[in-house]
Amino acid sequence: MLKLNKKDRGDIMDHKVITLSREFGSGGRDIGKKIADELGYDFYDKELIEAAAQRSGIDPEILEQNDEKLNTRFSPSFNSMNSIIFSTSQLSLNDRTFLAEAEIIKEIANNKNAVIVGRCANYILEDYKNCYNVFIHANLEDRMERAHKAYGLPEKKLKEAILTADKKRSSYYNYYSDKQWGKAQNYHVCLDSSCLGIDKCVEILLTMVK
Amino acid sequence: MLKLNKKDRGDIMDHKVITLSREFGSGGRDIGKKIADELGYDFYDKELIEAAAQRSGIDPEILEQNDEKLNTRFSPSFNSMNSIIFSTSQLSLNDRTFLAEAEIIKEIANNKNAVIVGRCANYILEDYKNCYNVFIHANLEDRMERAHKAYGLPEKKLKEAILTADKKRSSYYNYYSDKQWGKAQNYHVCLDSSCLGIDKCVEILLTMVK
Repeated sequence: MLKLNKKDRGDIMDHKVITLSREFGSGGRDIGKKIADELGYDFYDKELIEAAAQRSGIDPEILEQNDEKLNTRFSPSFNSMNSIIFSTSQLSLNDRTFLAEAEIIKEIANNKNAVIVGRCANYILEDYKNCYNVFIHANLEDRMERAHKAYGLPEKKLKEAILTADKKRSSYYNYYSDKQWGKAQNYHVCLDSSCLGIDKCVEILLTMVK
Repeated sequence: MLKLNKKDRGDIMDHKVITLSREFGSGGRDIGKKIADELGYDFYDKELIEAAAQRSGIDPEILEQNDEKLNTRFSPSFNSMNSIIFSTSQLSLNDRTFLAEAEIIKEIANNKNAVIVGRCANYILEDYKNCYNVFIHANLEDRMERAHKAYGLPEKKLKEAILTADKKRSSYYNYYSDKQWGKAQNYHVCLDSSCLGIDKCVEILLTMVK
């Protein structure tokens, strides 16, 4: 039996954690990496998968396949980690991946300065006083351009791919948290990287944390 | 006949405008005033009423009574200023107030450095390239404390008063714009004044604009 308790680290800690949610193609990952480099913080995006695999014993390939993904067909009873007690045998691979990553995210937040990208980290750490929660968004045109350059997606399918990726991220977030993805009130700082540019976003977030 | 055209100032201008939307009691007005003082910008909150009265010839008391208010009973045909052509005689006092303030807001944005609080200014100026749109929010407890100190509202009615004020602001915004109040994607920067504090919000917004 497993119960996740979010209310355990409301005390103030010396180190800081920045969680970074992002629209697909907004440059959120790049911004997070630059802040981490600038501040000398550890950076976690895909790196969480390996850490969660080591900690949970789950095959890293299975974690990778289910990372930030949602398949509601296999998890009818799971809609908030706040109050539900469940047996791990009842859980879908998506749920087990989420829980394994949540444990690692809390472990990181308890112990070190870090930037953590995605994976509902702002919700998992919402009662952590040492945590800044950031959301990065951008206009569709800029995101299409960035996705084309960064991921080599064909131009014809760019818009559809971006909207589908956003839909998946918001569904994942809205499902595992009791909050709404992209609603300003769920973050401490939200930034438009189209208007501000990547470097200005980094500068603002350094101002936030210093 | 009157048609508001929002697409007329997409060019880059030397001066800057900061529009500031805010949850009731979040300290948004104070933050806006401090930024304006720090940058030497003109500051417009209630000041818009007097300016709109002078420009429109409408009695300032009527504008004050209808400022940032919505009475849908008297304005069944008005839901977006983007494309509707209408006769001023058909308009409610709320609509006339909105339009008079919108004209002043565009006039300000065309001519000077300014901070403008509320009144859908971010929507009215959404195509102005010299404009930063900011949203300030805070947790309910902090807002209750601020509202109690600033406006002397009785403690028993604080929560209700705040939620009602927010509801009015969001209804007003959602009605006159085609956007959603408090959705991160509708602003360039959103800040949580509870987590960050007023001074840090000011510092971040100065970083944004400089």
